[in-house]
Amino acid sequence: MENHDFGVVGLGVMGRNLLLNMADHKFAVAGLDLDAEKASSLAKEAQPGQDAKGTTSAEEFVGMLRKPRAIMLLVPAGKPVDSAIASLVPLLDKGDIIIDGGNSYFPDTNRRIAELEDKGIHFFGMGISGGEKGARFGPSMMPGGDKQAYERLRPVFEAIAAKVDGEPCVTYLGSGSAGNYVKMVHNGIEYGIMQLISEVYDLLKRGFGVADEKLQQMFTEWNEGELKSFLVEITGIVLNKTDDETGKLLVNLISDQAKAKGTGKWTSQNAMDLQAPIPTIDAAVNMRDLSKYKEERVEASKSLTYTPVAGEEDILSAVKDAYYFAMINIYAQGLAQLHIASKEYNYGLNLEEVAKIWRGGCIIRAVCLEDFRKAFARNADLPNILLDAEIGKSLVDTQESARKIVKLAVDKGIPVPAFMTALAYFDAYRSERMATNLVQAQRDYFGAHTYERIDKTGTFHTKWD
Amino acid sequence: MENHDFGVVGLGVMGRNLLLNMADHKFAVAGLDLDAEKASSLAKEAQPGQDAKGTTSAEEFVGMLRKPRAIMLLVPAGKPVDSAIASLVPLLDKGDIIIDGGNSYFPDTNRRIAELEDKGIHFFGMGISGGEKGARFGPSMMPGGDKQAYERLRPVFEAIAAKVDGEPCVTYLGSGSAGNYVKMVHNGIEYGIMQLISEVYDLLKRGFGVADEKLQQMFTEWNEGELKSFLVEITGIVLNKTDDETGKLLVNLISDQAKAKGTGKWTSQNAMDLQAPIPTIDAAVNMRDLSKYKEERVEASKSLTYTPVAGEEDILSAVKDAYYFAMINIYAQGLAQLHIASKEYNYGLNLEEVAKIWRGGCIIRAVCLEDFRKAFARNADLPNILLDAEIGKSLVDTQESARKIVKLAVDKGIPVPAFMTALAYFDAYRSERMATNLVQAQRDYFGAHTYERIDKTGTFHTKWD
Repeated sequence: MENHDFGVVGLGVMGRNLLLNMADHKFAVAGLDLDAEKASSLAKEAQPGQDAKGTTSAEEFVGMLRKPRAIMLLVPAGKPVDSAIASLVPLLDKGDIIIDGGNSYFPDTNRRIAELEDKGIHFFGMGISGGEKGARFGPSMMPGGDKQAYERLRPVFEAIAAKVDGEPCVTYLGSGSAGNYVKMVHNGIEYGIMQLISEVYDLLKRGFGVADEKLQQMFTEWNEGELKSFLVEITGIVLNKTDDETGKLLVNLISDQAKAKGTGKWTSQNAMDLQAPIPTIDAAVNMRDLSKYKEERVEASKSLTYTPVAGEEDILSAVKDAYYFAMINIYAQGLAQLHIASKEYNYGLNLEEVAKIWRGGCIIRAVCLEDFRKAFARNADLPNILLDAEIGKSLVDTQESARKIVKLAVDKGIPVPAFMTALAYFDAYRSERMATNLVQAQRDYFGAHTYERIDKTGTFHTKWD
Repeated sequence: MENHDFGVVGLGVMGRNLLLNMADHKFAVAGLDLDAEKASSLAKEAQPGQDAKGTTSAEEFVGMLRKPRAIMLLVPAGKPVDSAIASLVPLLDKGDIIIDGGNSYFPDTNRRIAELEDKGIHFFGMGISGGEKGARFGPSMMPGGDKQAYERLRPVFEAIAAKVDGEPCVTYLGSGSAGNYVKMVHNGIEYGIMQLISEVYDLLKRGFGVADEKLQQMFTEWNEGELKSFLVEITGIVLNKTDDETGKLLVNLISDQAKAKGTGKWTSQNAMDLQAPIPTIDAAVNMRDLSKYKEERVEASKSLTYTPVAGEEDILSAVKDAYYFAMINIYAQGLAQLHIASKEYNYGLNLEEVAKIWRGGCIIRAVCLEDFRKAFARNADLPNILLDAEIGKSLVDTQESARKIVKLAVDKGIPVPAFMTALAYFDAYRSERMATNLVQAQRDYFGAHTYERIDKTGTFHTKWD
């Protein structure tokens, strides 16, 4: 019986799809779920000749797996992960591997690694991106943990991962919670880009009265060139979907109160701990939050009035380059955070590899990831992709459009915080000298916090008046 | 001996100044510090006839105080607070009161309240603003804790607080860690306004070549009208200070790498937990963080080039109203966070009282606080001051200048994230419908996260392609 290559705990759609993906690649797989219907449906969904067995018994499940066992948890983050670990551990042997495939908060992963280390069990935190479809036909996977133990997992993960130019979108990322951390920042970038796309949509539709059909065409066209990316692609698809019942465009019927599951928030909160500025991701997080205050906004829309500047500038020509400019700045912020976090947490991240496995399978896949991969290939220790000569040049060339779009949005009264913070980030980053000397002087004035000088070393305090 | 009204542990400049302030108001006070020099200097600094005694002995210190004892800790946040509590508790009696006067993180205060409750000792978290001078001659104080126990403290605090129209800038704020929380948000607003002032300075000086002397005059003039505030006032003073050694303007010699002590960061991080958007405070936090990356910025300044749009618009006429507009939006964000936090944490805050005690003594004091006080007097449950008719009208009237300033900064290539996020916040807040419906559609596409509709209740999921 101990002949199954891989096991998954939690046979929701993600768990089932990952196992079916493995079965397609000739692996014998086992699934565990307390829900008998989910457990039995796995075998039914598998193709003839494939070995995919589900069970409701943890003993039977563990007994089916070859040693060292490889078991992935796909249960909700938090207590369910700890419960699943607790119920498995008595049944496992030294050298077995547990992989947490959910969006766990990275400090939890560090704690679990330490707890299981004593028992000789390897624990991996692994972000998985690509949604249901990705899980079934090729996700991007971000595993972190013990490097040697990864060799047991590598054949399975490389087989099922999305491929770009024949290369799998999975690689060993680093030690400890590196996998969860990289996935967290991936999601932060995802928040930023989704906010940016919604601003393009809002500015064109509400600000300039561009028709839905035209918007749909535009995003579809964008997906054919340098902006080709999953999120642009699905925007074109989403804007093409008619509601069966009303015959209206479905997106126009959707509530504007956005939900969030917390990974974007974690990215922003941790970036502040690391003093790694990611203003555009912060803006995306707080615009989702602001969307919740519907009643207040309805009230404010009546009192806080503004008459937009008239005029129908040829905005379509500028918005594409502006989008490119802001998008690159969002990736730059997230990748710089990874650079800083890798040093702070000793992850040993290779950012060329990160860019590489993000090229396919995941939500933030885009053709520009290959440009980033090349930038890190030129300089493995690049602290910020804005400093790469080629990427820098592309921003210098497109900044004019970004400036134009921000000004037009201001005139039209449309909020574009992602465009704005991307531009402010760019302008601050390229400032040899910022105006924070004044902040330092003020702090010294009222709090005697001292300051440093540009013309000599040491810390100084002044009686200002 | 047990005749002293109030004791302070930690005789640094803040502790000494608060005690001397109390002594000026005829209170008998005691101080404790392990440093014998600090302990003995207290009596020397007091005026003849005043009763202000320092000691290095905790036993002697506690023995000097009348019961129920009132003891304020002015030691660094974190472990020193816990150590000071641990050393005092064995010497105290039921009903005694310990006040933490530092910038403690509010969950620590909740923990300490619970720990000391069992022993019958009241614990207060109290933010103090105003710096050294404020402590000596009238700070703004933000106490939270047990309402009845506050009566023991009230005479002392009301005597030493700053006064505005004869009213003291201190009041009982609410239960639990309400005092620390309000002070934390106070500091977040402080970060936002300091960032805003530095942007005015940067845009005028670097963007438009306005001379230092002219800038100094401008801030001094601003302090005579509706922008009158401590931070504007000290900016005028700071910009007037010549370096003794070089004869140059001192602010120009100060390093632009800003420091921070964490309260701004806590404000932003907690706001994200509460889903209370404060984008301009976030921007201030991450601009201080970005200022640290000096070497990268120097490098980027060479490659990420931009030729500013020429032209010397009459910027000075617009910048004042733009500052007013952005400043109000910063206060609005912080006060809305307090509104939300008060419900979430059951603080029972009265925002009219908060605005009232912020009018004097503290770092963010400004004449506009009286406008906010009036707005909360009109509607105690106002969720956001932007919804007040008078404040709303002042923003409608000044928005044009804010839009102009953002556009000019974009043309000049000067980063103004505080102006930008304030304007984006305003434009998003007054949006009856935001573009986050598209975000919801995208999330449903790739993650089956479901969405809500505007035309019927329930949650929905769609197969988009």
